[in-house]
Amino acid sequence: MIGAGNVATHLAPVFCSSGAGEVVQVYSHTLENAEALARQIPGATATDSVADIRRDADIYVISIKDDAIATLVASLEPNNALWLHTSGSVGMEALVPLSARHGVFYPLQTFSKDVELDMERVPIFIEGADDRVEEEIREFATRIFSSVYHADSETRKKMHISAVFACNFTNYLWTVAERLLAADGLPFSVLQPLLEETLRKALANSPASSQTGPAARGDRKIIDAHLALLDGRYKELYAMLSDEIMRERR
Amino acid sequence: MIGAGNVATHLAPVFCSSGAGEVVQVYSHTLENAEALARQIPGATATDSVADIRRDADIYVISIKDDAIATLVASLEPNNALWLHTSGSVGMEALVPLSARHGVFYPLQTFSKDVELDMERVPIFIEGADDRVEEEIREFATRIFSSVYHADSETRKKMHISAVFACNFTNYLWTVAERLLAADGLPFSVLQPLLEETLRKALANSPASSQTGPAARGDRKIIDAHLALLDGRYKELYAMLSDEIMRERR
Repeated sequence: MIGAGNVATHLAPVFCSSGAGEVVQVYSHTLENAEALARQIPGATATDSVADIRRDADIYVISIKDDAIATLVASLEPNNALWLHTSGSVGMEALVPLSARHGVFYPLQTFSKDVELDMERVPIFIEGADDRVEEEIREFATRIFSSVYHADSETRKKMHISAVFACNFTNYLWTVAERLLAADGLPFSVLQPLLEETLRKALANSPASSQTGPAARGDRKIIDAHLALLDGRYKELYAMLSDEIMRERR
Repeated sequence: MIGAGNVATHLAPVFCSSGAGEVVQVYSHTLENAEALARQIPGATATDSVADIRRDADIYVISIKDDAIATLVASLEPNNALWLHTSGSVGMEALVPLSARHGVFYPLQTFSKDVELDMERVPIFIEGADDRVEEEIREFATRIFSSVYHADSETRKKMHISAVFACNFTNYLWTVAERLLAADGLPFSVLQPLLEETLRKALANSPASSQTGPAARGDRKIIDAHLALLDGRYKELYAMLSDEIMRERR
């Protein structure tokens, strides 16, 4: 395991616990992090020296910052092992210098070191240098994860855009809601049952068919009343999103 | 219980099962709906005639369409009971003609008849004609619900705006994500673990401190790459929301 950040910290233990493989070594440019992760894995050693990375592994999983991948790759010797990276934004070809057997193993989830996750449910998107390599990656991935999909670099990019809309932008709208509520002394948590139910419905029936609210009803009276109570950027945002939703009705 | 729609269908049974009260009668202008709800409540009768609404109840809960409240109120005789409506958008004063003891009992949740909910967790927002009436409503509400807050008409309106941002608009962004994924043959459900984790984090740590993604990092390179892959309304929306999030960083 090359890397000991959020993704590596969640992946390495399940590689082992699932029985899919044995993690023999953890590399990180920060020894402390490598050691912290290695301690969680029976039999794994830790190193912060690129020169000390073992040459005899069957699989190398590179899970470090996107910007650091090219430099690391340049400092490693090629071999015949299977080399994978876990980045959604870096192309598969970044690993060409290391081995003909290379690919991508991209988990679509947001990871924090201290938050436990049901790893088996995380969707994994794979891409292999050729069909045989991709089959090898798939075989490895399905031993651990229940949802394994093929995704080339272009698809990974579009998935990332979807995730920006679905997660980053929605989180921003929750921030707006949090501030509007705070102005009336109400905690964001008053929305919790409503948020959970809204997400549950969207997942059960698809968001397109779950759309509710004044704009979905075309209720201009309520929309105007809301706009009158807002100002500046939030007013603009409310108007734009309501227009988008109303356009869908036509 | 005056009304037999989505809200009434969830409220009436918990009024009984919690021991807070006994629902003696269900009125709906559609007899079938009144009967369907009354059947779920031991001892309740059903009617579709306003003239047959019992005069001896202690509490009347009006849970019908916003637009129908004024007409219904005009057709009822005043008495000394406690009259409540459950609307987020209608002012408390709509009930003045019925009784000096009146108020609002507004549950902040999206209800569907056929979906079971953990009703005890639904936040209830109350307002009473005077302090004594409000105390009476609070006493009743806290026997059933764990989160009871005061909210006057102005605050209910702002809560509604917050809910539009937090639920209706986010659902629209999920719709956008669903379409972008569908273009690559991927189901919306690939985002499920990510969406659930994003919501969990926002609720645990507040959305403002959970913001991630290219705009939150100020990663202009990724933002431009994403904009190049989008067009039309989705491109505009991506640009606007990214600008908003980046403005927060300054």
